Amino acid sequence: MPDHKHALDQALAGDTRALARMLSLVEDGSPRMREVIRELLPRTGQARIIGLTGAPGVGKSTMTGALVAAFRAAGRRVAVLAVDPTSPFTGGALLGDRIRMQEHATDEAVFIRSMASRGHLGGLAAATPQAIRVLDAAGFELIIIETVGVGQAEVAIASLADSVVVLLAPGMGDAVQAAKAGILEVADIFVVNKADKPDAQQVVRDLRNMLALGTFEQGWKPPIITATAAQGPKDEGIAELVTRLDAHWTWLTESGELERRRRARAREEITALAFAALRERVAKKVDELAAGVADGKLDPFQAADEILDPQDRQQDEQKDLRYTRG
Amino acid sequence: MPDHKHALDQALAGDTRALARMLSLVEDGSPRMREVIRELLPRTGQARIIGLTGAPGVGKSTMTGALVAAFRAAGRRVAVLAVDPTSPFTGGALLGDRIRMQEHATDEAVFIRSMASRGHLGGLAAATPQAIRVLDAAGFELIIIETVGVGQAEVAIASLADSVVVLLAPGMGDAVQAAKAGILEVADIFVVNKADKPDAQQVVRDLRNMLALGTFEQGWKPPIITATAAQGPKDEGIAELVTRLDAHWTWLTESGELERRRRARAREEITALAFAALRERVAKKVDELAAGVADGKLDPFQAADEILDPQDRQQDEQKDLRYTRG
Repeated sequence: MPDHKHALDQALAGDTRALARMLSLVEDGSPRMREVIRELLPRTGQARIIGLTGAPGVGKSTMTGALVAAFRAAGRRVAVLAVDPTSPFTGGALLGDRIRMQEHATDEAVFIRSMASRGHLGGLAAATPQAIRVLDAAGFELIIIETVGVGQAEVAIASLADSVVVLLAPGMGDAVQAAKAGILEVADIFVVNKADKPDAQQVVRDLRNMLALGTFEQGWKPPIITATAAQGPKDEGIAELVTRLDAHWTWLTESGELERRRRARAREEITALAFAALRERVAKKVDELAAGVADGKLDPFQAADEILDPQDRQQDEQKDLRYTRG
Repeated sequence: MPDHKHALDQALAGDTRALARMLSLVEDGSPRMREVIRELLPRTGQARIIGLTGAPGVGKSTMTGALVAAFRAAGRRVAVLAVDPTSPFTGGALLGDRIRMQEHATDEAVFIRSMASRGHLGGLAAATPQAIRVLDAAGFELIIIETVGVGQAEVAIASLADSVVVLLAPGMGDAVQAAKAGILEVADIFVVNKADKPDAQQVVRDLRNMLALGTFEQGWKPPIITATAAQGPKDEGIAELVTRLDAHWTWLTESGELERRRRARAREEITALAFAALRERVAKKVDELAAGVADGKLDPFQAADEILDPQDRQQDEQKDLRYTRG
């Protein structure tokens, strides 16, 4: 039995370290990853994927912690992927893991992992869907993807989720900023966090005015709720967020929107993988072919064909070989 | 003999209408285009390609006319491609052709053609290099590509030329605007046109100050010349522009920069064609494959492979067939 099959069985049996090794495999874009994903595939599709995003300082980590506690109290297995699309992988992210883990260190039904860009091909955008598949197959009912910041990359990561929660807070990352980043369009639920601060109601009003400008044709009008995540007895609004998330999930499954979203995601993933593979082929062959085209010895269409379908030539060579031998 | 081979021979023999038909073929992205380009290829690589760009109102058309007259006076065959990457093909463009043609209507050594986007795959960016090959093979020693406006598309078209002339004029499309569009970086020669206007020297100074901020590592410092193109006895500076263009051509050929530029262009052309072909395959197959990936029946890597290398499956089918028959 190959190593990773053993690791897969261990991970599915609840071995957190085996699971961490599998996630490293997909993060590294290891050649073995494809085989692992193929093995996992029949076990996927059950998890609910929740995206949580917002500007730095709005309290995403604390809110994630509060959500994890609420889901655990309801007996659900939860995984968290904290994704930073802009930073390289650092010890800091690992340290963050360890601090977050302490609370749930002995709880096998909670798994927390930080992912940051390692600069390999496709990067996090390619690795995150595979990490989600691993956690899904490992039996986590809820997977929370928490992103750092509110840039284009964060919007892309957030759109990997079934339900996207956008966090705002008084004085931090206001609605205008979120609108500029295009994050309002992907939100399914808005949470104005730090609701105990004086300006919280103003953030709610600003957000409501801004949303009034948009249209929601999908049959789901994103609610705006207020909360105070403190990860303890001072928590406010977490129960309502869980209720809203459950309502969104019900709507997703009953309206057919879940299937539509998952297909759209699959379309984007396949397209990105195909283009990434073509970019690799271009990088490998274009210089040599460009010389031929520039010198008028090769036409550009033929050159493009040789990049797109490199095996054409191999086929011809094999055919030639066959004829020679025959 | 296929139709287009006949047309090719006629075009090479100086038949303007046959040439126009061949250009329509490449503009339409006709399937026969590939064959035509392959036939032409050995005859290409001789023409000097001059790009002429600048904001609307700086006098590009008049300057093009003056350049054509100057080149004709020196006994050179000249073709003009007036490219509008932003507008669909309109009767206006055709009318423009007819008006411009009048002056040179009886001169077989001058050929003028307007090209505008027809909205097909790849559009003008794909068609223009092929149009250049046709004119090159037809024996035009100089091909002037004139673009309308100063957007990203114009910069892309201008970068198809061996020598890029950027036109400015007092009060129209100042240096700051050109800088914003990224057009200063691609310029080999600057012409401040309408030099008889009072502010012309101010445009020269502004431009000089702006260029002082950049660096020119390639060994060619783009000169700034002043001119007044009037297409007649009032012409000023056209002779100097021709001299500068000749000097640039000498530098291009002697420094090896011509070969470098043409290879870089071939690289971009091949890459664009390969990606355009992949986009077609994605559009054709991704919906069907996405359903399989979303349902966990197909892994995304396999799906990407099926788009990138559709013949893999055919090969397998043929192999199966062979074994069955054998």
